[in-house]
Amino acid sequence: MNKDIRAILEAVQAGNLSADEAMHKLKILPFEDIGFAKVDLHRPLRQGIAEVIYGAGKTPEQILDIIEVMQKNGQATVLITKLTQKTADVLQKSFGKKLDYHAEAKIGILGELPRPDGLGKIIVATGGTSDIPVAEEAALTAEVLGNEVTRLYDVGVAGLHRLLAHLDEIMNAAVIIAIAGMEGALASVIGGLVDCPVIAVPTSVGYGASFNGLSALLSMLNSCASGVSVVNIDNGFGAGYLASLINHMEAKSK
Amino acid sequence: MNKDIRAILEAVQAGNLSADEAMHKLKILPFEDIGFAKVDLHRPLRQGIAEVIYGAGKTPEQILDIIEVMQKNGQATVLITKLTQKTADVLQKSFGKKLDYHAEAKIGILGELPRPDGLGKIIVATGGTSDIPVAEEAALTAEVLGNEVTRLYDVGVAGLHRLLAHLDEIMNAAVIIAIAGMEGALASVIGGLVDCPVIAVPTSVGYGASFNGLSALLSMLNSCASGVSVVNIDNGFGAGYLASLINHMEAKSK
Amino acid sequence: MNKDIRAILEAVQAGNLSADEAMHKLKILPFEDIGFAKVDLHRPLRQGIAEVIYGAGKTPEQILDIIEVMQKNGQATVLITKLTQKTADVLQKSFGKKLDYHAEAKIGILGELPRPDGLGKIIVATGGTSDIPVAEEAALTAEVLGNEVTRLYDVGVAGLHRLLAHLDEIMNAAVIIAIAGMEGALASVIGGLVDCPVIAVPTSVGYGASFNGLSALLSMLNSCASGVSVVNIDNGFGAGYLASLINHMEAKSK
Amino acid sequence: MNKDIRAILEAVQAGNLSADEAMHKLKILPFEDIGFAKVDLHRPLRQGIAEVIYGAGKTPEQILDIIEVMQKNGQATVLITKLTQKTADVLQKSFGKKLDYHAEAKIGILGELPRPDGLGKIIVATGGTSDIPVAEEAALTAEVLGNEVTRLYDVGVAGLHRLLAHLDEIMNAAVIIAIAGMEGALASVIGGLVDCPVIAVPTSVGYGASFNGLSALLSMLNSCASGVSVVNIDNGFGAGYLASLINHMEAKSK
Amino acid sequence: MNKDIRAILEAVQAGNLSADEAMHKLKILPFEDIGFAKVDLHRPLRQGIAEVIYGAGKTPEQILDIIEVMQKNGQATVLITKLTQKTADVLQKSFGKKLDYHAEAKIGILGELPRPDGLGKIIVATGGTSDIPVAEEAALTAEVLGNEVTRLYDVGVAGLHRLLAHLDEIMNAAVIIAIAGMEGALASVIGGLVDCPVIAVPTSVGYGASFNGLSALLSMLNSCASGVSVVNIDNGFGAGYLASLINHMEAKSK
Amino acid sequence: MNKDIRAILEAVQAGNLSADEAMHKLKILPFEDIGFAKVDLHRPLRQGIAEVIYGAGKTPEQILDIIEVMQKNGQATVLITKLTQKTADVLQKSFGKKLDYHAEAKIGILGELPRPDGLGKIIVATGGTSDIPVAEEAALTAEVLGNEVTRLYDVGVAGLHRLLAHLDEIMNAAVIIAIAGMEGALASVIGGLVDCPVIAVPTSVGYGASFNGLSALLSMLNSCASGVSVVNIDNGFGAGYLASLINHMEAKSK
Amino acid sequence: MNKDIRAILEAVQAGNLSADEAMHKLKILPFEDIGFAKVDLHRPLRQGIAEVIYGAGKTPEQILDIIEVMQKNGQATVLITKLTQKTADVLQKSFGKKLDYHAEAKIGILGELPRPDGLGKIIVATGGTSDIPVAEEAALTAEVLGNEVTRLYDVGVAGLHRLLAHLDEIMNAAVIIAIAGMEGALASVIGGLVDCPVIAVPTSVGYGASFNGLSALLSMLNSCASGVSVVNIDNGFGAGYLASLINHMEAKSK
Amino acid sequence: MNKDIRAILEAVQAGNLSADEAMHKLKILPFEDIGFAKVDLHRPLRQGIAEVIYGAGKTPEQILDIIEVMQKNGQATVLITKLTQKTADVLQKSFGKKLDYHAEAKIGILGELPRPDGLGKIIVATGGTSDIPVAEEAALTAEVLGNEVTRLYDVGVAGLHRLLAHLDEIMNAAVIIAIAGMEGALASVIGGLVDCPVIAVPTSVGYGASFNGLSALLSMLNSCASGVSVVNIDNGFGAGYLASLINHMEAKSK
Repeated sequence: MNKDIRAILEAVQAGNLSADEAMHKLKILPFEDIGFAKVDLHRPLRQGIAEVIYGAGKTPEQILDIIEVMQKNGQATVLITKLTQKTADVLQKSFGKKLDYHAEAKIGILGELPRPDGLGKIIVATGGTSDIPVAEEAALTAEVLGNEVTRLYDVGVAGLHRLLAHLDEIMNAAVIIAIAGMEGALASVIGGLVDCPVIAVPTSVGYGASFNGLSALLSMLNSCASGVSVVNIDNGFGAGYLASLINHMEAKSK
Repeated sequence: MNKDIRAILEAVQAGNLSADEAMHKLKILPFEDIGFAKVDLHRPLRQGIAEVIYGAGKTPEQILDIIEVMQKNGQATVLITKLTQKTADVLQKSFGKKLDYHAEAKIGILGELPRPDGLGKIIVATGGTSDIPVAEEAALTAEVLGNEVTRLYDVGVAGLHRLLAHLDEIMNAAVIIAIAGMEGALASVIGGLVDCPVIAVPTSVGYGASFNGLSALLSMLNSCASGVSVVNIDNGFGAGYLASLINHMEAKSK
Repeated sequence: MNKDIRAILEAVQAGNLSADEAMHKLKILPFEDIGFAKVDLHRPLRQGIAEVIYGAGKTPEQILDIIEVMQKNGQATVLITKLTQKTADVLQKSFGKKLDYHAEAKIGILGELPRPDGLGKIIVATGGTSDIPVAEEAALTAEVLGNEVTRLYDVGVAGLHRLLAHLDEIMNAAVIIAIAGMEGALASVIGGLVDCPVIAVPTSVGYGASFNGLSALLSMLNSCASGVSVVNIDNGFGAGYLASLINHMEAKSK
Repeated sequence: MNKDIRAILEAVQAGNLSADEAMHKLKILPFEDIGFAKVDLHRPLRQGIAEVIYGAGKTPEQILDIIEVMQKNGQATVLITKLTQKTADVLQKSFGKKLDYHAEAKIGILGELPRPDGLGKIIVATGGTSDIPVAEEAALTAEVLGNEVTRLYDVGVAGLHRLLAHLDEIMNAAVIIAIAGMEGALASVIGGLVDCPVIAVPTSVGYGASFNGLSALLSMLNSCASGVSVVNIDNGFGAGYLASLINHMEAKSK
Repeated sequence: MNKDIRAILEAVQAGNLSADEAMHKLKILPFEDIGFAKVDLHRPLRQGIAEVIYGAGKTPEQILDIIEVMQKNGQATVLITKLTQKTADVLQKSFGKKLDYHAEAKIGILGELPRPDGLGKIIVATGGTSDIPVAEEAALTAEVLGNEVTRLYDVGVAGLHRLLAHLDEIMNAAVIIAIAGMEGALASVIGGLVDCPVIAVPTSVGYGASFNGLSALLSMLNSCASGVSVVNIDNGFGAGYLASLINHMEAKSK
Repeated sequence: MNKDIRAILEAVQAGNLSADEAMHKLKILPFEDIGFAKVDLHRPLRQGIAEVIYGAGKTPEQILDIIEVMQKNGQATVLITKLTQKTADVLQKSFGKKLDYHAEAKIGILGELPRPDGLGKIIVATGGTSDIPVAEEAALTAEVLGNEVTRLYDVGVAGLHRLLAHLDEIMNAAVIIAIAGMEGALASVIGGLVDCPVIAVPTSVGYGASFNGLSALLSMLNSCASGVSVVNIDNGFGAGYLASLINHMEAKSK
Repeated sequence: MNKDIRAILEAVQAGNLSADEAMHKLKILPFEDIGFAKVDLHRPLRQGIAEVIYGAGKTPEQILDIIEVMQKNGQATVLITKLTQKTADVLQKSFGKKLDYHAEAKIGILGELPRPDGLGKIIVATGGTSDIPVAEEAALTAEVLGNEVTRLYDVGVAGLHRLLAHLDEIMNAAVIIAIAGMEGALASVIGGLVDCPVIAVPTSVGYGASFNGLSALLSMLNSCASGVSVVNIDNGFGAGYLASLINHMEAKSK
Repeated sequence: MNKDIRAILEAVQAGNLSADEAMHKLKILPFEDIGFAKVDLHRPLRQGIAEVIYGAGKTPEQILDIIEVMQKNGQATVLITKLTQKTADVLQKSFGKKLDYHAEAKIGILGELPRPDGLGKIIVATGGTSDIPVAEEAALTAEVLGNEVTRLYDVGVAGLHRLLAHLDEIMNAAVIIAIAGMEGALASVIGGLVDCPVIAVPTSVGYGASFNGLSALLSMLNSCASGVSVVNIDNGFGAGYLASLINHMEAKSK
């Protein structure tokens, strides 16, 4: 709400702008100039890194249009989430090998992955192999946003040794994303082992009384380990995004 | 349905009993003689061990009456569950120190504990200290039914080392009762460590999204560890009873 | 955590091992040496009996690979759960008649069934005919793990005589698996008739207010019969596995 | 909509009533004359039998007023449901021994019980002793409405012999009210034994996963026995009323 | 448990039967002879009327077998519920026009409908047109069981006049089946208008917060009208069966 | 209940009608004459505007029949909701371009849209683009009923500037329909900005813990902004109808 | 966002204000000047009518302070909701008879009720007498906001004649607030009778399967009558406020 | 698992320690030395800052004992959560003014608050005033752990200007804790405005369909704003702890 408005006011003061013109200008530079920083759910996250497109419900043409605008604006890397194989096939006609499509995670990446530059590594851990699609969505999101990611898949608590075999890596992580369906105990056990933030992602993996992820969700919300917070069921993107935010924390000028 | 009926039939055949009398006899020896072995929810469990009274909603007088009958029948030890302090106080006027009252578990024990004689030890483990009342109900029940019990309290998964410190005991148990509220992950972690049957007891301990034990219940039902089964929320007695059944398994004649 | 560590320490004390080497050794004998016995959810259960593969989400190739490893290790019998007809067809190209596929239970058995050797018989009872797929998963699992199994199907409580006609068998069982959808009352009625452990399996059979097994699940958890515990909705494998564990109980050295 | 309206019309036709007066008359004899037979939830049920007052939330004075009106109208017997001890005490100052108060069922009965005159007996059965307050509400309601009632309390399915000991009575009943909390299996088992209508009443008795009667409610709704229907949790009055309706069925002129 | 047992006893007494033979005889005349009247959920309901087959999950061959047995036993009319079009087509190859298939209700009727003989008419009322499949299942069931049925479809409470236009019929019914999805208010309104038993059937018709019939189910259970009871969501057969039971009530010898 | 009854009474008084005939007449002019104004859920809303047909579950033929009747009665415009593409295709064979089909909203409009005449504009706002089908159902319904509608789509609260950019329009609306899935916060935020009635429509858009619209529904019901009320999940028609009612409020004669 | 900003800009243009001063001025006239009209949940509703204080959780002193400010600003009438008897007693020490306290509705009114001036009457209808506290909160709120209110209490659908007796009033209302617990059918029935907006308020009145208002809530959301919308359980204030908004609708300048 | 073990090994190697002694030493320095860093849920968080005691269910004596141990170990500041007034009174007899008790948050602080040293400020924002107890628990926790906290209370989305008035502070925060009951929209709106991590805390504030925080919980889990994660209902401590973790992120050596 500062620089641009002041510029307009000074132009008025200098007689270079009428009140009417100023009024108009104030209206068309809508909100990003008035202090609302966030243009879009998937807006450029940190300058020079990557842009994100939410692919669900968008036609290939719509996605192509958005990419074109992004590229005009000099955007090097684009992450497309919830991208179906079918839409990916159409996009690949335009971009060929430049578009890297990850079918399991339903993620497309256009352009180079940025060089990781966060505070440390992000670990993406899953309870079972069926949780991997959600995990890959989280891991690829974090990578596109400039993070080094370690994948620890199928380390569920029913075979504790599999998790403990990676104790060193776990205890040295900057952020951990713990992904599990069924009883979702992974988040609690990891949360009890480490001091870093743990982002728990319940998955809809399971049957019967898992009630499509409800069991894991409740379990994770009730974790008695400190430092654990939870995102929506199957929300790999949200976890990867938040993990990247935390992994890029830096001192704020006060 | 065998011995008694045959006896009656043979008496008829021998002319010692008329058809009418036989008919009447068949009617009054109702079902325990016809094969329905189980007289009562809390009936003498194994001969010579203990009898159980469900104390909830019973007046001290009712309990006294039942005990009197039991003692006439030569019953040495009586377990009274869900016994309030108030009712216990009344009972103690009659029995004095012979009645051992455990306020936390709301359990009264009259007479000597039997010498433990099962296949091995029963471990009663809890996630936190708030789960102890349920745990004591389970442990005392198992002890009254002739089992050696090891208590491992406050070994929740958010501090995994507390559980692992008892690994030897855990892995050598005959049966384990895993009791936890909140996220209920204890059952899964223990179930993944051992080969013996694990009886999971969700507790209503917790707040918010624990929904009075629902979170722990669902978590335990979804355990991906094999060998785990679940009883009702806060059902310490049921877990102790079942653990004793399993700990006293013996070969059936086929 | 004992023998091996002591051996290492003694080697250090004897000067046969440097501190560095000892440090390294402690790290590489990770956890199976420290007491974590359980290598896998479906690991060899009792020596010489059978190995289990969880078939869901595995390609035929993956299953073939696992079987190859198992057979190299001398494993005679392999149980594959959640095996689709399609995958079974592929497997049968390799194994022919050696692979016994049970379509209803989605179970494949490779090799000979072991000779049953438990304490007694396991009864698998269902409320209706629609519960049979879950029941067969339980029954075949128990048989592969070396148990004699009696099937009592369609003995639901709405026709009590059908259940009572098998009273002798029921009362002589070592363990009973009670499987029912709808109102799930079978577990309570059986639990009230017998003294052996009863494993209740709610099924998703039903419609309307059965809410995909929730009604049966709650019903079974609330059973007022002692000795009853519950596994997840439709979890036939879990029930068969646990029943086998209980049916093979033996005295633990203390 | 018949007799009274016709009378008015005939009076108009006869010139004894103007159209205006008729219009007015039609308005003031509101609906009971136009065909809406039911004046009140607790209106005189069958002529000469009993009247019912819903006592909840009514002051003693309000109840006294209603009774006074009823008695002026020649009503012999009055049933007051949900009557607290405190309000009953006040009422008894007016009526003395004429008011028969049943504390457990929270029911007051003023005047003589009618002589039972239905098609047969109504059986009120409960799973446990804790269900008795609801059962007494049902039984007393049925008695006040002119039915012979047999009480079978504490015949829950976990001790099947207790129920089967009364097989003759059960199979000869006109209507059965099956009342149970916990797993609510009683309704299914009884429904499977008899051919008469079974009214199932879930109760809020239980703990943990009984969720205040939800478990019994779902169980009863899913009963696979035909002839079973369900009323609200703890709704003893509703069950007694409906049972009486059914027990007094008679041929309708067509 | 009477006549047959007495006969056996008398034969023993007369020396015509040894104790052993009697023992054997008692065992093989299992339960239908001992007082368990109900052979099957869908057993001959009242002599000479109709037999019911639950068609769900049965192959055409299985159904044909059952029908053959029934016809051998002289059964004139057979009701098959949950009969798919596909299975009906197969059956019609055997029975031709003798099989009357009602696609909407998924009901097949073989043989003549019995002449109605109950106490009065059964009204089957629905809130909307989408409830008709459930209603037809109820109505046809009642008709096959010997009842005269009046259908009042699409008389939901949002257009009260449509219901009130049938006030005379409603108030003269012996039993009313009130079928509705959405908010399920129909049962309460009808229950408030009449004195006869009302069987409420919630349907899964609706969307959003109807939660597949849960809304209507809860609504009906909470009806403040007396005389209303509820069966499972979409359970038209159960309602028709129960309505017929009530409509054929007759005096029981006491 | 007035004019017609009085006419009948006066005819009786004048001797032009016998009591019997009057009785009959009162019966056949059933309820629309006695004051029940509402003939049908989708009846002519305000004279001369439009008629609505609920298309779900109706065959093209049924719809054609209804339209024919409407047109005979001089109805100019007809709104058909829940109209599938397939049925629309059939209808368009009859009506050609006169039928305007909106595939996304599943709405067909036959005839001219009426000229808007309400108190002000109705704003239809959505949180995201996936909510648009529900929004279009609401918007088109309102337009057909004679309202000027402003669409503000994709103005969800996660990008507040998008909503605030339309602050002037929002604050000048007569009625606002706020449509959102996921967390449903749009209704609260709008409700806090304006003084006009806000109709909140939760949608089933979302995944995981949105539980098919439950999350948005609860959120909207708990709005702490005054002036907000809620309709069923995805009920665009209901919201458009109610908004039109409110936008056409006028003084009632008292 | 218009007048004031333009004034500032013109002052800058005229040289009467520096850019810096303008910047500051833009900051301190925060949001009420920029178009955010709503200062508080309970802010002056329509000029000169009444002010509302949400009393829950406020001390008498806090309430007194707020009233003092209001009165300084010339506010004549103040509505205090959720006012406990205890707090009311303290307030009455200050205001005496000027404070009109309605214990049932927990509402206090200070000052004169405004003269009603809306488009018509608001009807507040309840299903039973237990719903009256919520109804009085709604009715008094509407009265304080300048509406004429007609109370129709205890007109639930189980006694339809009670509702229909008031048909004339109902059909002439401007807005109807339908309040009911239990099955909540009142809203649907009223919604089917009238053409005006109906605001449904579920109440927590009931027991068993009413689940504290959930049953009524779902029922009302699923109403098949058009023109019905729903507010939170027991939210009498919200219904009264919204009804007043609608009853004071007037043409918006476009 | 490193330094201490190496030291022991080296001591053995040097002959200063026997294998037996080493074995013993390895056992008594149990797990914090073997790599399990986390001794307790409330263990010293960052060296020299503060220690936390979970006060719920602990007697004053138990808390005193723990504090004594902590102080012996040189702990300067102690945070006691869930501390009742009653227990606080007892503690204050020992510590006097050194114990700062915050009744609303049920938090006691013993000793000096550390000087804040995180990356930036933590904002604790609430939707209403009733959320303040949870907010204070979060804020005090963060302060005790060395963070500068800004409190923005009562900035709920129903009065958006109250939130936007603090836009500068919000957009400059390092971490934001968004606390709200009712519809819980605050987290989404804040999440849409900022780029820093947002920790959402649903509270049990509300009534009716808020279902004790369930509505806010679901709402927050479904937030369409990125960077938002959720902790358990009313879990102020967990949010404050996690916010502090994030606010103290620093580069990990890799």
